[in-house]
Amino acid sequence: EDVQNRSDNREIPIDRVGVTNLRYPIIVWDKANESQSTVATLSLSVHLPHHFKGTHMSRFLEVLNEHRGEFTIKTLPTVIHELKTRLDSEAAHIEARFPYFIEKQAPVTKKTSLLDIEGYFHGASDASGDDFILGVSVPVTSLCPCSKEISDYGAHNQRSTITIEIRMTSAASEHFVWMEDLIEIAEASASAPLYALLKRPDERFVTMQAYDNPAFVEDIARNVAKRLQDDERIGWFRVKCVNQESIHNHDAFSEILWTRPTES
Amino acid sequence: EDVQNRSDNREIPIDRVGVTNLRYPIIVWDKANESQSTVATLSLSVHLPHHFKGTHMSRFLEVLNEHRGEFTIKTLPTVIHELKTRLDSEAAHIEARFPYFIEKQAPVTKKTSLLDIEGYFHGASDASGDDFILGVSVPVTSLCPCSKEISDYGAHNQRSTITIEIRMTSAASEHFVWMEDLIEIAEASASAPLYALLKRPDERFVTMQAYDNPAFVEDIARNVAKRLQDDERIGWFRVKCVNQESIHNHDAFSEILWTRPTES
Amino acid sequence: EDVQNRSDNREIPIDRVGVTNLRYPIIVWDKANESQSTVATLSLSVHLPHHFKGTHMSRFLEVLNEHRGEFTIKTLPTVIHELKTRLDSEAAHIEARFPYFIEKQAPVTKKTSLLDIEGYFHGASDASGDDFILGVSVPVTSLCPCSKEISDYGAHNQRSTITIEIRMTSAASEHFVWMEDLIEIAEASASAPLYALLKRPDERFVTMQAYDNPAFVEDIARNVAKRLQDDERIGWFRVKCVNQESIHNHDAFSEILWTRPTES
Amino acid sequence: EDVQNRSDNREIPIDRVGVTNLRYPIIVWDKANESQSTVATLSLSVHLPHHFKGTHMSRFLEVLNEHRGEFTIKTLPTVIHELKTRLDSEAAHIEARFPYFIEKQAPVTKKTSLLDIEGYFHGASDASGDDFILGVSVPVTSLCPCSKEISDYGAHNQRSTITIEIRMTSAASEHFVWMEDLIEIAEASASAPLYALLKRPDERFVTMQAYDNPAFVEDIARNVAKRLQDDERIGWFRVKCVNQESIHNHDAFSEILWTRPTES
Repeated sequence: EDVQNRSDNREIPIDRVGVTNLRYPIIVWDKANESQSTVATLSLSVHLPHHFKGTHMSRFLEVLNEHRGEFTIKTLPTVIHELKTRLDSEAAHIEARFPYFIEKQAPVTKKTSLLDIEGYFHGASDASGDDFILGVSVPVTSLCPCSKEISDYGAHNQRSTITIEIRMTSAASEHFVWMEDLIEIAEASASAPLYALLKRPDERFVTMQAYDNPAFVEDIARNVAKRLQDDERIGWFRVKCVNQESIHNHDAFSEILWTRPTES
Repeated sequence: EDVQNRSDNREIPIDRVGVTNLRYPIIVWDKANESQSTVATLSLSVHLPHHFKGTHMSRFLEVLNEHRGEFTIKTLPTVIHELKTRLDSEAAHIEARFPYFIEKQAPVTKKTSLLDIEGYFHGASDASGDDFILGVSVPVTSLCPCSKEISDYGAHNQRSTITIEIRMTSAASEHFVWMEDLIEIAEASASAPLYALLKRPDERFVTMQAYDNPAFVEDIARNVAKRLQDDERIGWFRVKCVNQESIHNHDAFSEILWTRPTES
Repeated sequence: EDVQNRSDNREIPIDRVGVTNLRYPIIVWDKANESQSTVATLSLSVHLPHHFKGTHMSRFLEVLNEHRGEFTIKTLPTVIHELKTRLDSEAAHIEARFPYFIEKQAPVTKKTSLLDIEGYFHGASDASGDDFILGVSVPVTSLCPCSKEISDYGAHNQRSTITIEIRMTSAASEHFVWMEDLIEIAEASASAPLYALLKRPDERFVTMQAYDNPAFVEDIARNVAKRLQDDERIGWFRVKCVNQESIHNHDAFSEILWTRPTES
Repeated sequence: EDVQNRSDNREIPIDRVGVTNLRYPIIVWDKANESQSTVATLSLSVHLPHHFKGTHMSRFLEVLNEHRGEFTIKTLPTVIHELKTRLDSEAAHIEARFPYFIEKQAPVTKKTSLLDIEGYFHGASDASGDDFILGVSVPVTSLCPCSKEISDYGAHNQRSTITIEIRMTSAASEHFVWMEDLIEIAEASASAPLYALLKRPDERFVTMQAYDNPAFVEDIARNVAKRLQDDERIGWFRVKCVNQESIHNHDAFSEILWTRPTES
């Protein structure tokens, strides 16, 4: 007998039920249109109506396995719709977090190296339609304007992480927003970008670049927000900046949530 | 000069700015009206209007330090209001997560031991009023009904974590909802509770108790939801159950969000 | 001027200096001789003699980048020797941890799915020669023999992790020990293996398999140890088993360290 | 029947078997002879001879519970010896990690605040005698000498963690080495110490202090090593410094292991 299909009389629907903390190899396409193999941590879930006792957990894995090797941002909506069909549900969600590498050139010597950022996809589909959130967490340098101003020399600086999550407008249908676009915005909004490989002339360059571009944790969030608001393809965003303060053992953070006002 | 007080012309207010990942010793009062010393991880933040460049991070620590030794759930609203005043802001938030210990008696031998759960407070205050969320994450055992039904003997079971977050109604003003109340609900909703110390007769008891009370991850969330809905003191809740599946290397989860319908 | 090359008069050599927590895409070869793309967390370090003030951190990245795309277990010794040369040191170390996927067939339906284990390489080279440690962390099920014995029905079981690290003898030069070999030993030593995808008949099978093969955390470590001792290709091992006890909120563990006695 | 007491014929002794990842409230005494309540993560284990099938896990908890409220560094040897007796073993180990707070005065305004460090105890006892390792992980600031030297202005700096573990000689029997002593050594060996609360004049002070005291990750480890070697109470140490590089997304580290040469 199918225990999960038994009826339930508590009259309580479940918003999300499924699998989480599932590690899975995925392929992500980058802006230059090349594929990148990485390992994601996934959550897959569906809505469960009040009259069903349980969902069928193994079907999440079956749907996932059928798309192995082609589980990319382009196929995400297909996978979500299949979850709805196969699990007989009106709503489904997929969340994926994964390391993603971008090739960067050191500012002076032009030596190349790989910087690891974190990518994030959240796809959903329910009665009201489909939804997609694209996200990145980008490590950068921040240098404190107050410390610079009040000191005769030097200024405390530190590694910071800028997390950006966006929803796109219909204006993005022709020109998709890539993770690379969000990474570029994050790096341009901080005191200086990070690199895995810097030779001496490069280290000199980024040291002075950061000193020349001091930014509070508030400034960084606003710099990102301004750039996103100016891009018609962005309909909604959340930006969060966290500074691993080099003079404290706690972090400083700032967060802005924004929805593009609809015209009338 | 006060760099933070400079004006900003980007016209972007910041929803939350402050300190996070701050470890701090706090005192929590338990239901039996005794105090428990523990170590919290804190976030403190305020709203920053669009015309101010920055907030004054050191003031968060000053407010916190002034309340050292008495930073409890009772003083939380006071601390939040002081944050608003001292940081000259219309809104403030405090989040705290901390290990919390409850003394439990083994079911048969009655030997006592301490079980660690995780407590969570979220206090906020803005123009619309004050808000408070109380939360717990409680470890329990879950035993799979399907595995039990289809097998000639045995059934897979595992450690699960039930996270409950609630907002209270005015009905709670006389009879406050304690963490202990939520822990009790969590434990009663699973296949069996956990204990740090079990002697042989106790282990026998909980093994059979779990086998006698199989529960899907969906059942556990619904069991908790039902109990919370039946308690007039609860106005809103979020319950999430995560099973560390003993037959898989990923977890199963279920989540229910609910707001008490207002009468008319 | 090269600050790092300045002399140091504290007369204190440094055992290891280098980079750590570096995420990097690597390729690992599996036993079936196919390549698997994954993302490693790396540490690279060298010995620094007492008379040098500092090492040249950027050279670690240069050596790594030159081997991009071919950084596999086969090229590891080459990379380590290059570190010694390029950093002018008598000793070098590389540690890598990475998710690794093996394809498994469900025991009854034969449905295939991917199980994620964790792989570990530690390569070193110094005046006394080269050294290589191969490791895996494999998730399995353990079912408590005591709980089974004392209960009328049921038995508590849980997800466990078996970590095996080995050094090989010269007997391995012809028949290399693969991660797959260690995974097989780990799975055979527990109550039952794990699978990402199990249909109902499979779930029935593994539930009863675990009940039929109860094993204490001590048994599992000994089962692994026995198999490793019986394999002439293994010269040294460390095995650690950690059970996420389903009746407690803490873990049980066992650990055995062993070196093959040399004949005389 | 006592399943654990059954004999085992695999002839494999187990080095360590016990409980781990156990959270427990403990009291630690500080140098000023006042007690501090904190929450530790514990491992307790014993040696298991080859002829016993299993240990008695619940006894670890019983011993621990009997010492509740007085589990301090002074009572640690007593607890370890009790583990040996109660678990009928020739060797026992206890490891504890816990947050520990020290009160610090800001360098200029003298405002006080709490800095969280991590404490570590490792106690052991076997046929060869008793052993005790005391450890701390202290957050500090490091400022890069190379970056300072090659740049016209500024220098990259970051939060670093210095981990020190020591064994004491008989010279410590009269003057015990406290965690506070090790914290002092760590802070004196970096570019600047950290504080939870710094007002503007303090921030100015520490910014310039760090700029005036540049130190490579190698320098910091050597500075600590030199101080420990000069202290006759220290018989063995391991020091590890990890810099959260503000210009990279990986960390730099250095590590020194040392044993005091015995006189003859």
